[in-house]
This record gives sequence, C-alpha cells and structure tokens, in this order.
Amino acid sequence: MIDITSNSNQQIKDWKKLHTRKERKKTSTYLVEGFHLVEEALNYKKDAIQKVIVREDILTNDAYLTMNIDAKKVITVSEQVAAELSETETNQGIFAVVAIDKIDFPETVNGPFLLLDAVQDPGNVGTMIRTADAAGFQGVILGKGTVDLYNSKTLRSAQGSHFHIEVYEGDLSEFISRLKDQDVKIYGTALNEDAESYKNINEDKTFALMVGNEGSGISNDMMALVDQNIYIPMKGQSESLNVAIAASIIMFHLN
Amino acid sequence: MIDITSNSNQQIKDWKKLHTRKERKKTSTYLVEGFHLVEEALNYKKDAIQKVIVREDILTNDAYLTMNIDAKKVITVSEQVAAELSETETNQGIFAVVAIDKIDFPETVNGPFLLLDAVQDPGNVGTMIRTADAAGFQGVILGKGTVDLYNSKTLRSAQGSHFHIEVYEGDLSEFISRLKDQDVKIYGTALNEDAESYKNINEDKTFALMVGNEGSGISNDMMALVDQNIYIPMKGQSESLNVAIAASIIMFHLN
Repeated sequence: MIDITSNSNQQIKDWKKLHTRKERKKTSTYLVEGFHLVEEALNYKKDAIQKVIVREDILTNDAYLTMNIDAKKVITVSEQVAAELSETETNQGIFAVVAIDKIDFPETVNGPFLLLDAVQDPGNVGTMIRTADAAGFQGVILGKGTVDLYNSKTLRSAQGSHFHIEVYEGDLSEFISRLKDQDVKIYGTALNEDAESYKNINEDKTFALMVGNEGSGISNDMMALVDQNIYIPMKGQSESLNVAIAASIIMFHLN
Repeated sequence: MIDITSNSNQQIKDWKKLHTRKERKKTSTYLVEGFHLVEEALNYKKDAIQKVIVREDILTNDAYLTMNIDAKKVITVSEQVAAELSETETNQGIFAVVAIDKIDFPETVNGPFLLLDAVQDPGNVGTMIRTADAAGFQGVILGKGTVDLYNSKTLRSAQGSHFHIEVYEGDLSEFISRLKDQDVKIYGTALNEDAESYKNINEDKTFALMVGNEGSGISNDMMALVDQNIYIPMKGQSESLNVAIAASIIMFHLN
C-alpha cells in the first residue's frame, strides 16, 4: 500500500512549500532530491534526516535496497506525487526532508575559508561549495544577497559537499571580524593598482578568499575589509572569467 | 515606423527557427542575443552579421546609438516580436543574425587546444570556451555528442569568446590525428594508474587537453588516443569536480 497518492494531501503540500526560503526558515528543514544527495545525507547527517520519501516503483530498486534507510522514516508516494514534489523534469523517485544544521563559527580556524558577497546564481554558489570541498577548504560563508544554500539548484550543483564542509550564512563583516581576530588574512578578487597576480601569492593554511557578485564584483563595504587583492592574469581577448571558475583557479593554486 | 510588428511574419518565424540546430545547419546562420554578444560580433565578425534586429524602444538608447551598426542591416521590431524571438525572460531588445564561420583547421598549430568529448551541458561548454580564451588557448574542438556551439545557452555562457578563438566541431579522432602529425601531445583527464598530478606537468605552448562527458568521462575510443592522463589531487571528501572547473584549473596551470 502506498502512503500518499494524492497531490492534495496536506503533508505533500507542506513539503512542496520547502521549495521556498520562507518555509525552510519557518520549519528549519529542507528537501533534498535524488539518489546521490539522499545517500550523502545518510552518510554524513543521518540523524538530521526526518523523512525519506520514496516513489513506489523505487522500493524494489537495488540502489534503494542497499541504502540502509531507517524504515520508520520512509513514506511511499505515487508517481504523480513524486512528480509534484520534484524540481527536475525526470525525478529519480527519492527525496529526503533534512533538518537545517545550526552550527557555530569555530573558535579556532584551522583551514581556509571562501567568502561569497552577493553571488546570485545558484549554479555558481553550489559549484563553489563543491570545489571548496575538493580544495580542502574548512568552510564557505554566504554573505547577504547570496542565493540560499537550500535552493534546489544550489544543492544540485554542490553535489552533497555542503554535508562535508561548514557552510555559514549571514553578514560577511561579522564573520570577517572573527577571522581577523585570529589573524586570518582576507584576500579579495578585484583588479586595482595594488592587486597581485595569484601566482605570486603563497599562503599558509588559514586565509580567506572573497569573491563578489557576477555583474558588479565585491561591494564597496566588503572591499574596505579586504587586506590584499589578487587577480588572474589573462592572455586572450576575454575580459573576465565566470566567478566560480576564477574562485576555483585561485583556491586550487593557494591551497 | 516599425518594420515588423507581428509574430506571424514569415521572417520572424524563420529567425525563431534558428533556435534549432537543424535550421542553423540549413541556413548556415545563427542568432545572438543581448548587447554584449551583438557588440562582440560587431567588433570581431562585422562582415558575418547579416541583420541586426532591434526592439523599437532601443533605437534611442545610448548603448545602441554608440554601437556603429550599418543602418542597412537594421530591422526594427515591436516588443511582442522581440519577446517571441528571445530565449531569455527579460530580453535586452537586440539580436543579430550571424553567418556561421567555416574555418579550416590550421596547417600550423601554435597554441594549446581544448578537446571536448561528449560534454552535454551548454553552460559547461560555453564556460570552457570563455576560459580557454582567457587562458590563451588557440582553439576548442567540440567532439561528437557535445552540445552545439550555437545553442543560445552555450553562446550566453561563452560571453563572446567564440568570436575570439577558433572553435571547431566534428570527429575528435580526425582532429587528434592532425594534432599528432604536428607532434602535439594529447593529455586526457582520467584517473588511471599512469595518471600524473597536473602539478607535475610542465608544457610548452602546443599541447591538447581532453575532457569528457559530465557523467561518464572520456569515452574508450577517445581514451585510446590519449598520450598521458593527468588528474587533480583532491583534499576534501568531494569525489569529483565539475568538468568546466577541472578543465579551467588545468588550463590555467599548464599555460
């Protein structure tokens, strides 16, 4: 027997609302979709998983059967309901409702941080979280005006890396003052007369790298908090790099 | 007086068809949209521009007036027609119909090439063309199964870089044999036992870097043509990098 077969079921309506930032704030939960993200949640934040929503045909699927999910948390749904919940065209038939982690900023910083000032594209933000993870960064801080971590497109691009590294959201200036209290140098990515080529920068393990909005770069308020700007020398006729590309080249060079 | 005010105008129907690969092949033309791309076309491929389509309210716009467009090529359209032609939610009111460049592969290779084997996401392909331009690459070759260069999303992500560097489409194995005839080494990006960290590779100015499909990587057929595989050592718990990120890190390191 399938638990929920109707899109008008109140529980489905509530979960569907998790696609909005407002509802995620209100309930302190978010929705992940697809085998990879549900598996990553199981591996890294098992206790935070409140429900696993499974499309009926998936129950006999090998990938599902090997997943070690607490049966008490499973809710089965019809194909129609899965399509209603999904933000993708062809859904994989598996979702999880996960509690939002409230983590405190660490008393001792022991790795590099990436700071995002008003980065608006969820694909860029997710990709930078994924790359910061691969580059061994301690965390990523999403400043004001930056797209929400729990946006489904951000989560999809991050590929589960938000389960591996610390991701904070809030006023960058507050985080920067805590980083500076621990003598962490703040690098910006603006091409001004004092900017250094990234190739000339050698860093130890604690530093912070700030990148800005896709169109306008780092805001003046945040620029005032930067200790040193770095740039990527370009050879062709291209005027700029995509923000996630630029951040990735510098993250892998510095770390 | 506005030239075209109706979506059922045959010319508009024909231009709208340029959103399909089939029509682009048939007519050997494609459509670019937005101020930046039209400006890049004017700067780099002026003769290839067949028409510039302008929304009526743009005619008095400063950005438009400074653009130095041949008046004989301008067709003005209504707001409704511009919305019909556009692939974006809020269009900038300017488009150009551009002839597809038929370029021959160079007799003498004098810079690095990026080879894409079945890369499917237009954002990834466009971003790699943009980054190859910034990294000073001579060209990018889009192998079979790779998304079309003239897809509107590819063009948007490439930001006009396809006007700056050579972009070829076709069978990678044919291009590779021409590269090998000139002693150009082919690097792949697969993690096998002979793979070297990209940090240990120092290249001269002619080499080729191949990246593969987002899900399955480089195909077996293409892998057989690779001289040396390279990989990016990762520190965190992330299992992989986005293909455009990985390509960019290596392109900027090697060149």
